[in-house]
Amino acid sequence: MSGRLLVIGLGPGDDRYLTREAHDALLAADALYGYGPYLDRFPVRPSQLRHASDNREEGARAEAALRHAAAGARVAIVSGGDPGVFAMAASVCEAAETGPEAWRAIDIAIVPGITAMLAVAARAGAPLGHDFCALSLSDNLKPWGLIERRLDAAASAGFVIALYNPVSRARPWQLAKAFTLLGRHLPGTTPVIFGRAVGRPDESLIVTTLAAAGEAAADMATLIIVGSSETRVIARESLGPLVYTPRAVESVIA
Amino acid sequence: MSGRLLVIGLGPGDDRYLTREAHDALLAADALYGYGPYLDRFPVRPSQLRHASDNREEGARAEAALRHAAAGARVAIVSGGDPGVFAMAASVCEAAETGPEAWRAIDIAIVPGITAMLAVAARAGAPLGHDFCALSLSDNLKPWGLIERRLDAAASAGFVIALYNPVSRARPWQLAKAFTLLGRHLPGTTPVIFGRAVGRPDESLIVTTLAAAGEAAADMATLIIVGSSETRVIARESLGPLVYTPRAVESVIA
Repeated sequence: MSGRLLVIGLGPGDDRYLTREAHDALLAADALYGYGPYLDRFPVRPSQLRHASDNREEGARAEAALRHAAAGARVAIVSGGDPGVFAMAASVCEAAETGPEAWRAIDIAIVPGITAMLAVAARAGAPLGHDFCALSLSDNLKPWGLIERRLDAAASAGFVIALYNPVSRARPWQLAKAFTLLGRHLPGTTPVIFGRAVGRPDESLIVTTLAAAGEAAADMATLIIVGSSETRVIARESLGPLVYTPRAVESVIA
Repeated sequence: MSGRLLVIGLGPGDDRYLTREAHDALLAADALYGYGPYLDRFPVRPSQLRHASDNREEGARAEAALRHAAAGARVAIVSGGDPGVFAMAASVCEAAETGPEAWRAIDIAIVPGITAMLAVAARAGAPLGHDFCALSLSDNLKPWGLIERRLDAAASAGFVIALYNPVSRARPWQLAKAFTLLGRHLPGTTPVIFGRAVGRPDESLIVTTLAAAGEAAADMATLIIVGSSETRVIARESLGPLVYTPRAVESVIA
């Protein structure tokens, strides 16, 4: 008897970003697995089991949930943002591939959510209005040289760049290095957005330039968007600036 | 007196992907602007004005909505997917920048939605589990040479690639050319996903390889994800394959 494992994206912040599908899936689960603060965002159903774990224990959480689902339960793993973007869905697939045969008979379904770059972009205007890429700046799971190569490739080809995991206590120097590297391809006036804790009471949004970006504060809850040479800022008198990247490009970027 | 203009992302398909914020914003609007089929997805409130327009009239739609909001109304433009990803938000920002001074006093807010690549990725597993980019294959708004340059840059640096607008009646040859170009950087076994009309009754998902991708059908409702050399396919006996890109990369890609 095989159960079902749903990996549910909550979106960032509070429940304003929750989709109807995610809401219904949360209600239907027999057991919820996830990082404690994500589980705390939703009221408990008395019959529903909850298994909170630390944010760094993704592999172990995926395995525990698969084991539980293999016993026939309807299990859900909750994930901030979208589970498919630097989050739990890949960990679940990897565990399903390498684990016992029975895990590959489990009906695994991913419920998408609003990922941080979409929420931050919406707050700022439309900085992702043209071709863009999403890159994790964490070198825990890939070599720093590869990150540099990707930053070079993306900036020189004119992609807007969303940076996930820009900084942590164990990775203090990577972000400044990334800005320096991007400065070789992009003018110092290129718009840069720091979106922190979007959808939460302590939300903040800073619009600055690549030349000044090093001085803005970033932490684990920050998502950074670096514009392309086409990205524009509309200054407004009594409202915050609007940042957008036009859909049309006239000429081939040199 | 300045009104408010909301640009609301509906997500793809039916209302399962609608967020609570988008739902509430739709209800609160005095007037809705948008492509007819998007407006038809939601029940009419009798007091709410509706202005349907053709999908190709984005600039004119943005201007009409801004003019209406400037007169003091609460106006909403609805957008499929996420309004910030190859959709209405950039058109609204562009019109606000170039239009009358009064348009820059309008409170413009973007309500994010599930964009097609997140919905297609969720259906397939976690193909966007590692660094990725989103690229429109339409050369209506940018030169084809720039698209080729970006495909080269993204594939050679190991980004997974989501292709929006892969084909249209006026653009019949571009997709095959893109696959040929990607084949110079990626093995023929690289997983490729064709997701069509996700969230709609006629939804389809095809998992194939780069070598065979040319034979799969694509149209304006198709979103294509081309894996990287790291992307894996888990074959399963009684279920469809799971496609995912592991979060960890061991070595620098040559």
